[in-house]
Amino acid sequence: MGDQIVLEEELKMGAASNDFVRHEAVTGSNNVAQDPDPQPHDGLEAILNGGHLPSAELEEAIRLIYGKRLPQLAIDSSISDHAKENNFQIFGYQMKAQVEQLRRPRKVRIAGIQNKIVLPTTAPIGEQRDAIFRRVGQMIEAAALAGANIIGLQEAWTMPFAFCTRERLPWTEFAESAENGPSTKLMKQLAAKHGVVIISPILERDEEKDDVIWNTAVVISHTGNVIGKSRKNHIPRVGDFNESTYYMESTLGHPVFETAFGKIGINICYGRHHPQNWMMYALNGAEIIFNPSATVNGLSESLWPIEARNAAIANHVFTVGINRVGSEVFPNEFTSGDGKPAHKMFGHFYGSSYIAGPDGTRTPGLSRTQEGIIICEADLNLCRQTKDAWGFRMTQRLPDYAKELTEVSQSDYRPKIIKEI
Amino acid sequence: MGDQIVLEEELKMGAASNDFVRHEAVTGSNNVAQDPDPQPHDGLEAILNGGHLPSAELEEAIRLIYGKRLPQLAIDSSISDHAKENNFQIFGYQMKAQVEQLRRPRKVRIAGIQNKIVLPTTAPIGEQRDAIFRRVGQMIEAAALAGANIIGLQEAWTMPFAFCTRERLPWTEFAESAENGPSTKLMKQLAAKHGVVIISPILERDEEKDDVIWNTAVVISHTGNVIGKSRKNHIPRVGDFNESTYYMESTLGHPVFETAFGKIGINICYGRHHPQNWMMYALNGAEIIFNPSATVNGLSESLWPIEARNAAIANHVFTVGINRVGSEVFPNEFTSGDGKPAHKMFGHFYGSSYIAGPDGTRTPGLSRTQEGIIICEADLNLCRQTKDAWGFRMTQRLPDYAKELTEVSQSDYRPKIIKEI
Repeated sequence: MGDQIVLEEELKMGAASNDFVRHEAVTGSNNVAQDPDPQPHDGLEAILNGGHLPSAELEEAIRLIYGKRLPQLAIDSSISDHAKENNFQIFGYQMKAQVEQLRRPRKVRIAGIQNKIVLPTTAPIGEQRDAIFRRVGQMIEAAALAGANIIGLQEAWTMPFAFCTRERLPWTEFAESAENGPSTKLMKQLAAKHGVVIISPILERDEEKDDVIWNTAVVISHTGNVIGKSRKNHIPRVGDFNESTYYMESTLGHPVFETAFGKIGINICYGRHHPQNWMMYALNGAEIIFNPSATVNGLSESLWPIEARNAAIANHVFTVGINRVGSEVFPNEFTSGDGKPAHKMFGHFYGSSYIAGPDGTRTPGLSRTQEGIIICEADLNLCRQTKDAWGFRMTQRLPDYAKELTEVSQSDYRPKIIKEI
Repeated sequence: MGDQIVLEEELKMGAASNDFVRHEAVTGSNNVAQDPDPQPHDGLEAILNGGHLPSAELEEAIRLIYGKRLPQLAIDSSISDHAKENNFQIFGYQMKAQVEQLRRPRKVRIAGIQNKIVLPTTAPIGEQRDAIFRRVGQMIEAAALAGANIIGLQEAWTMPFAFCTRERLPWTEFAESAENGPSTKLMKQLAAKHGVVIISPILERDEEKDDVIWNTAVVISHTGNVIGKSRKNHIPRVGDFNESTYYMESTLGHPVFETAFGKIGINICYGRHHPQNWMMYALNGAEIIFNPSATVNGLSESLWPIEARNAAIANHVFTVGINRVGSEVFPNEFTSGDGKPAHKMFGHFYGSSYIAGPDGTRTPGLSRTQEGIIICEADLNLCRQTKDAWGFRMTQRLPDYAKELTEVSQSDYRPKIIKEI
C-alpha cells in the first residue's frame, strides 16, 4: 500500500485495551471541530429514553415512531465495552420474518458505520487519510466481531467532505482508484480477514480513463475481491454541496451486486431524494439498498427519517441510511449562497444512521453527534413476504409509467391540466 | 336530490347551538362501534403534549418529528367551541414561504376532514347516507367558516368501507353518478355557498357507460361546478381491502385540476404506496396532492406518516393525507385471510390526517379516534422556492428512467445483477 496506513496489529482488538489508549493518544480527540449549531439533545432516542415518559406512553410512542419496538440484538460485552472506551456507539436490533416451510430463514447482519474525520483538515492529506483508516478500521473490526455480515460505510468516508470549498488541490488528492487504491486495499484485507462484505464509498479517480473523478461505492466480497462498483446517479447543487463542480452523474445505471449475504444496491446520498432511483435498484433485484450519505443540520434533517424508510416500504427492501457525523473546519473561508458571511465550518453532520425494513419498521437512529455502528439482523425472507402481502410490484403499472415518463420527457409535453370551463 | 338529505338550515351554524343538540339527538352518538384494538393513547400528539417532557426536550422532539414547530392558525373561538360541542377536532397551522419581490404570497387554506360513519351499517342505506351527509356537511361548514379554501374529504366518504365483505347489495347502492349524484349535488351547493373548492371522493357508478363502478374523486370548484374527476390508479389486494372485487384501475391517467386556489391532484388511498403515482401528478403541475384514504391499524400505521410526507419532499408539493376514523361493524361475518376466525368488525381506522409541505415539515396529526378538521394556511410560493433550492426536477434524469422503465417492463428483461467472478 505504500502509505503509513493502519497495521493489522493496530486494528486488533480483544484484551489489548492499552492499544486503544495508544490509539487515542496518536489520533487525538475525534472532536476536531465543535458543532456550529448544536442542538440541546442528541436525537429523538435520547429524548424518548430520557426517563420522562411513563412506560405506556413510551411504548406507544415507539410503536408510532418506529413501527414497533424491535427486539435488541445481544452484543457481547467485550465489544460494547470496547466501543464505549473508544467513544463510539454500537447498537443491534432484529427484524424477523414469518417461518416458511420450504425456505429457510435468511438471517443476515447488516451494519452501517457513521464516523467523523479524525485530524484537522489542515493536516497533511496522507496523515488525515491514515487516521481515518485507523479509526474506521477499528470500527469495522468491532462490527465484524459483533457478527456483521455486510458493512456499509458513509459517503466519501476516507476524507472530509470538502466539496463545499470548490477548491481542487489538496482535496482531489483523496481521489483514488476504485480497483486498487489504498482504501480498497485496506477494505479487501479487512473483508477477507473477517469474511464480511464491505460497501466502501470513496472519491474515485478513474486512472484508466481520462483521470475523471467520480463519487463511487466499491463493493468488496467476503473473500476480499472487488465485485464491482456503483456510482452516484444524482448530483446535488444545494447548500454547500457543490459536488457538481467535481464529478458528473453516473453512467453505470443501477447495478445490483449479488453477494454471499444478499443482493445489494447502493443509492449514494442525494439519490435518496429520487424515489425512481431506489426503485430501479429494487427492480434489478436488490434486497438491501445502502444510502451512504453526508448531510447537515438545517438542510435535510426533516427529510432524513422519511426518505430511506419510504424507499424500504415502496420497494419491499431493507434500506440503510448512513450519514457522517461531526463538523468539519476548512483552511480557507467559503460562502454558502445564503447571504451569510464567509466561514470555514461545514456542518453539523447529524449522523442519525438507521436501518428500515420492508414492513415499514425501522431501528432507532444512532447519535446526532457521536460515531457509531448500527446493526440489524434481518431475515431477508421478509422482502418476499411483504411483496406477497402488499403486492406493490404486482400493482405498480410499470408499462403505464414507462409510457407517461417517455411522454413527459419530450420537450413539447403539455401537462394534463383540467380547468373549469 | 329526492332523498332526505340535509337541509341547508340544518347545516347552518353560528349562534344556533340548539341545532347542534338537536343534530346529536337525531344522529345519535358517532361511536357506532367500539375500537377492536384500541391503543392506550390517542396518537403521538397526545403523548408529546401530555406534559411529561420538559420544554426543551419537547421542542427538540417536535423539531425532529415534524421538521419544526409550525405557527398555529388562529381559529375563531365560536368555531372551536362549536367543534368541541360537536365532538370533532379543528386545528390549524401555517406553512410560510420567503417574501419575493415579483410574486405576491399565494396563501391558501387547505383543509382535510376525517370522519366516522354515523349510523350502524344495518340501518337503511338512504338513512346511513343522509346521516353522513349531515355530519360531513356540518364539518365542511366549520372548515369554511375557519377560512378553508380547499376542503378534501376522505375516500368513499359517503359510506362505510364495506369492501371487506365482498358482498354487492346493499353496499353498491352507495355508488352514484360523479356528475349529478346526491353527494355531488350537496357538495356543489356547499361549495357555491362558501366559495370553496371541494374534493369529494365517492364510489362512482358510471351511469352513462356500462354501469361500471369506480373509486373516484369529484373536484368541485368554488363556483359550485364540477371541474372534473379523477379515479383511483392503484387498487389494493391486501388485508380486508378487497377492492379489486368492485372496481378496476383508473384509465384516466393523472389529471391535475386548476382551481381558483391552486393546481390539485388526487392520489387515492393505496396509490400513496406508489411513488411514481405522486410523481406523475406533480409532473402534470400539481401544487397540492390530496390522498383520501381508508386504512387501518395493524396494516399500515407505520407507513402512514412516511408516504405522503415523502411525496411532498420528493415532488416539491403540499400533500394532504386524510384517513377515516373509527370502526365499522357489518351485518354478516367475513374472514380476513389471516387465519383468524370470521368476524364482523372492520377497523380500527386510525385517522391521523396531516398535511406535509415541500420543505419536509408537516403538521401534527389529527386524533387516532376522534373526527376532525386539519387546516394549513400554505403559501404555495414555497413549492417553487423549494424546487429552486433542492432542484429535484432538474436532477431527476427523467429520460433515463423512462428508458429504464420501458426496458424493465419487457417480459424478457434481465435484472442487472453483478456477481463475483
